[in-house]
Amino acid sequence: MPMYVVGHKIPDSDSICGAIALAYLKNQIDEPAVATRLGDVSPETAFILDRFGFEAPALKESYAGEEVYIVDHSELTQAPDDISDATIVGIVDHHKLGDLTTSTPLECWIRPVGCSNTVIKMMYDFYQVEIPANIAGIMLCAILSDTVIFKSPTCTTADIRCVEALAEIAGIEDFKALGMEMFKVKSAVDGTPARDLVMRDFKDFNMNDNLVGIGQLEVTDLSVFDNIKADLEADIAKLKEEGNRHSVILLLTDIMKEGSEILVVSDDASIIEKAYGKSLTDGKVWLDGVLSRKKQVVPPLQDAFA
Amino acid sequence: MPMYVVGHKIPDSDSICGAIALAYLKNQIDEPAVATRLGDVSPETAFILDRFGFEAPALKESYAGEEVYIVDHSELTQAPDDISDATIVGIVDHHKLGDLTTSTPLECWIRPVGCSNTVIKMMYDFYQVEIPANIAGIMLCAILSDTVIFKSPTCTTADIRCVEALAEIAGIEDFKALGMEMFKVKSAVDGTPARDLVMRDFKDFNMNDNLVGIGQLEVTDLSVFDNIKADLEADIAKLKEEGNRHSVILLLTDIMKEGSEILVVSDDASIIEKAYGKSLTDGKVWLDGVLSRKKQVVPPLQDAFA
Ligand SMILES: [Mn+2]
Ligand SMILES: [Mn+2]
Repeated sequence: MPMYVVGHKIPDSDSICGAIALAYLKNQIDEPAVATRLGDVSPETAFILDRFGFEAPALKESYAGEEVYIVDHSELTQAPDDISDATIVGIVDHHKLGDLTTSTPLECWIRPVGCSNTVIKMMYDFYQVEIPANIAGIMLCAILSDTVIFKSPTCTTADIRCVEALAEIAGIEDFKALGMEMFKVKSAVDGTPARDLVMRDFKDFNMNDNLVGIGQLEVTDLSVFDNIKADLEADIAKLKEEGNRHSVILLLTDIMKEGSEILVVSDDASIIEKAYGKSLTDGKVWLDGVLSRKKQVVPPLQDAFA
Repeated sequence: MPMYVVGHKIPDSDSICGAIALAYLKNQIDEPAVATRLGDVSPETAFILDRFGFEAPALKESYAGEEVYIVDHSELTQAPDDISDATIVGIVDHHKLGDLTTSTPLECWIRPVGCSNTVIKMMYDFYQVEIPANIAGIMLCAILSDTVIFKSPTCTTADIRCVEALAEIAGIEDFKALGMEMFKVKSAVDGTPARDLVMRDFKDFNMNDNLVGIGQLEVTDLSVFDNIKADLEADIAKLKEEGNRHSVILLLTDIMKEGSEILVVSDDASIIEKAYGKSLTDGKVWLDGVLSRKKQVVPPLQDAFA
């Protein structure tokens, strides 16, 4: 029986590419593994898979009785719904330590770097397994995505060195141009329903027993939102009404200007204003220099809720 | 400001030797670190430190506002009381994933092997830092202790290879003889107050919101308990009365016969009987082949409580 290698709900490129790369590595060291996913792939991820000749991993939502290797998180809210009936055999991640627990020993490869695929490269090095060129390509793209082409404050020297090594393996001469091409694909938001955009890269967090949903859209120019921002605001308000979240936040991130406008609906917006030291105007405010949900948005909010 | 490297409450040799070994490594890679401990060192650990010329790390129980690297567990019940006011920067461990969480990214070196010091050796290899002979000696002893000189079912090939490599570095020709010497020290229980014996290697676990305390005494011959078993039984009954534990279990482990007698006081002993498939007689039963609390005692009990 193989283990399943799966990233978080509403998978990003790190979750999908990481699952493929890690499943390949595990198979090479005689631990049968199958990459799966918990949701639709984004246009960015589809671009990456297409570029390097991969199919998307199979959609699989139930894991009861199975062995699971978790990629890119350690949070119950981001894991399969029946994860407590599965055996978690490992976690590879680069986020804060979440509330997943196990009843048996496991392996955790967690590092404070910019991308899970940077950690997966360390695993390849540890096991001395050669990385095929096409897998190096998708790993490289995942790192460029998570680190916003090295601009994110989450980016470390390890991520940059890793991309350089992977570019060599994949035979990619100008990886920054590839990164920009990828972000241009990501910036094409016109014609997409508001709910699809809100949910494209959306994560729920448990903050002192309050459920907080935070979505993020990274684009090369914020003006793409001019005609649809009102729709996005209406949609996060609707999303909050539908569920039991304390707050829903949408980050509109301009990767060239290097900052984010946040759209907020909340039971108590003062917590959000306290977290970022800024007043909201009509439920919005520009946060200069903020590119990273993980490093710049979640921790201050978690502290404000504590 | 240095980070503090600290093992679990009621520290065992893995916690103490691991803290010393990891703090040394961190200092070598320019991350200032100080080893500390959360309680008294056991006679076994004192023997190891003395043999290789180390002082015990300083006792330090409060870590508010500090950076902490956790060794040998990931459980709130085993961590410093004010851990939620500290920043956990890393965890090195070989147990099930517990309920510690963080609000910032960290490093986790967790592997399903027999001892945290085996994982710390992997960290030395990763950073390409040379292990001094005396540090290799204490790491080796910690692994022999946790794996019961390779007899425990938790022992893996990685632990054995690691001990072999450390023995070479430390210049120890007969590491099994050293291990037996160490377990003889551990077996000297006569004249020690019952409470000290019960608490010598005692861990609390949260099992489906029930607090379960499990102590373990490993000896080379169970007959050392002949005169004091009644005292031990009376003491765990008293310990349960004093606290809010659902159950207190004491494992009397015979490392030569390779099994454990368990002494039990419980609000519902049928859960324990269910967990191990054995009936208790006068609150006691022999579990053949059971050497490992982590692998053979905790998981079935956790499942029985679930
Ligand atoms: Mn990621
Ligand atoms: Mn240990």
